[in-house]
Amino acid sequence: MCILVVGSVAYDTVETVHERRERQLGGSASFFSLAAALYAPVRAVGVVGDDFRQEDLDLLAAHGVDIAGIERRSGSTFHWSGRYHDDMIERDTLATELGVFADFRPQLPAGWADTPYVLLANIHPDLQFDVLEAVADPKLVVLDTMNLWIKTTRASLERVLRRVDVLLVNDSEARLLSGMTGLAAAADAIMAMGPKRVVIKKGEHGALFFGPEGVLAVPAVLLSEVVDPTGAGDSFAGGFLGHLARVAAHRDDGDAEFREAMIQGTAVASHCPEDFSVAPIADLTSEDVAQRVAWLRAMMTP
Amino acid sequence: MCILVVGSVAYDTVETVHERRERQLGGSASFFSLAAALYAPVRAVGVVGDDFRQEDLDLLAAHGVDIAGIERRSGSTFHWSGRYHDDMIERDTLATELGVFADFRPQLPAGWADTPYVLLANIHPDLQFDVLEAVADPKLVVLDTMNLWIKTTRASLERVLRRVDVLLVNDSEARLLSGMTGLAAAADAIMAMGPKRVVIKKGEHGALFFGPEGVLAVPAVLLSEVVDPTGAGDSFAGGFLGHLARVAAHRDDGDAEFREAMIQGTAVASHCPEDFSVAPIADLTSEDVAQRVAWLRAMMTP
Repeated sequence: MCILVVGSVAYDTVETVHERRERQLGGSASFFSLAAALYAPVRAVGVVGDDFRQEDLDLLAAHGVDIAGIERRSGSTFHWSGRYHDDMIERDTLATELGVFADFRPQLPAGWADTPYVLLANIHPDLQFDVLEAVADPKLVVLDTMNLWIKTTRASLERVLRRVDVLLVNDSEARLLSGMTGLAAAADAIMAMGPKRVVIKKGEHGALFFGPEGVLAVPAVLLSEVVDPTGAGDSFAGGFLGHLARVAAHRDDGDAEFREAMIQGTAVASHCPEDFSVAPIADLTSEDVAQRVAWLRAMMTP
Repeated sequence: MCILVVGSVAYDTVETVHERRERQLGGSASFFSLAAALYAPVRAVGVVGDDFRQEDLDLLAAHGVDIAGIERRSGSTFHWSGRYHDDMIERDTLATELGVFADFRPQLPAGWADTPYVLLANIHPDLQFDVLEAVADPKLVVLDTMNLWIKTTRASLERVLRRVDVLLVNDSEARLLSGMTGLAAAADAIMAMGPKRVVIKKGEHGALFFGPEGVLAVPAVLLSEVVDPTGAGDSFAGGFLGHLARVAAHRDDGDAEFREAMIQGTAVASHCPEDFSVAPIADLTSEDVAQRVAWLRAMMTP
């Protein structure tokens, strides 16, 4: 079944200890769409500037992403620039130039209001709320957010969280949002805000799932080399919600398919750091994902 | 089957944001012995000063630990003092007073040379080597070490590693010892130094096992409160080697019992941070461990 994603379509300039790549395709909606398109049809809503390369739109379209919701406006595409530390985990943001993204107001193309699966990527929670208002009775809504919105727009975030089925956050965001140090307590507090299920991402330490039937801990795939981890979290979301859309999971179902979605998301995300930008996700096949799923299952079997 | 442990028997002064506890029983051999004694008979080799409380020796003995190898010498017992940060993970060492431990030369009591399971806790690698020289044909040797020895006594450490079956280290130690950033590559490099199997401990992120049959990732139990994490790594070692001794595992066996030992070690260690000093490990029952093992299995089952 079809997935709607609303998020950033951006250009990233990434520096690592080895290399620097300028203005490569990035943004949460780009990584998510390419990952989720392996599983189900994807409809992308976003905005780009008049500097945005046609080939990048073509790439998304060639992977089966419906780009009718990506508006082109006069101005610059959202540009993020960052430098990774030696550990390839910590990073410093060097520049965030919002460009046309500053005035982004998500508009759903005609006929998209009935999309059953919705991924509200990391944008202002009021815009996430507006998108939910425009969608009619979705089967499942997944939301991603970040420290900025938790700190500066908490009331708005809490408003949208009441209508969300699954929250995806990293460990520091979970602690900030909940005020709790222990991650189980943090997840409980977040579930009391609305989401029935919570995913806490821990980067190279894997991810935790909290649902009505308990906790699942999924390790990260052990990578021999990390080239550029940018977009791994959005790729995780793509594999996670992609799987749920493929099996037509509903919020009132049991946890089983959500737990399987954790494995799928982790397997997809594990490919992301292997090269710059969206290249590893754009090149991904179902066989590649299945191989990593097998690795993860072996790593999780006592 | 019987386990020999050689390590420190110490007094710890621990400060947390909430509390300060002075000169409580600590040391790698104390935590290890109490944990392993749940599984198999333990013989402890160490040294204490004339300030060491008889009640602490009695505690070990009452748990079935043979303390005939704990020598009492004139001087002060090894005293470690540290302060935990707010996160209850990072800590600063405030003082390390070696006392009688400075001249510690492990001596095996008569009849202990045939002990089949050996845990060489974190002491100078030359002393670890001397112990191995004194033991006749052990079934399994497990070694723990630390950054200090990796940095300052690498040749000695490499000499003893060639005779070790399982190395227990944390992630930063694995990287320092191997020179590799990726933990799979680090484990491979360490296995090339001698140990057939490597355990990389990651604290609140769990632990990784590397063996001939592959990798196992065990998550940490999610704790609601951390009072004092001191000794968790040694308690892990106790559950790990305790299980292997109980089932009489041999180094040439398959990985199955070693993978089970990872679960047992993690379950035992999860109790350690729930109170100060050895109290949670001394109070532990097999039922307590079994409950945490069940939690871990549920967390690992997709």
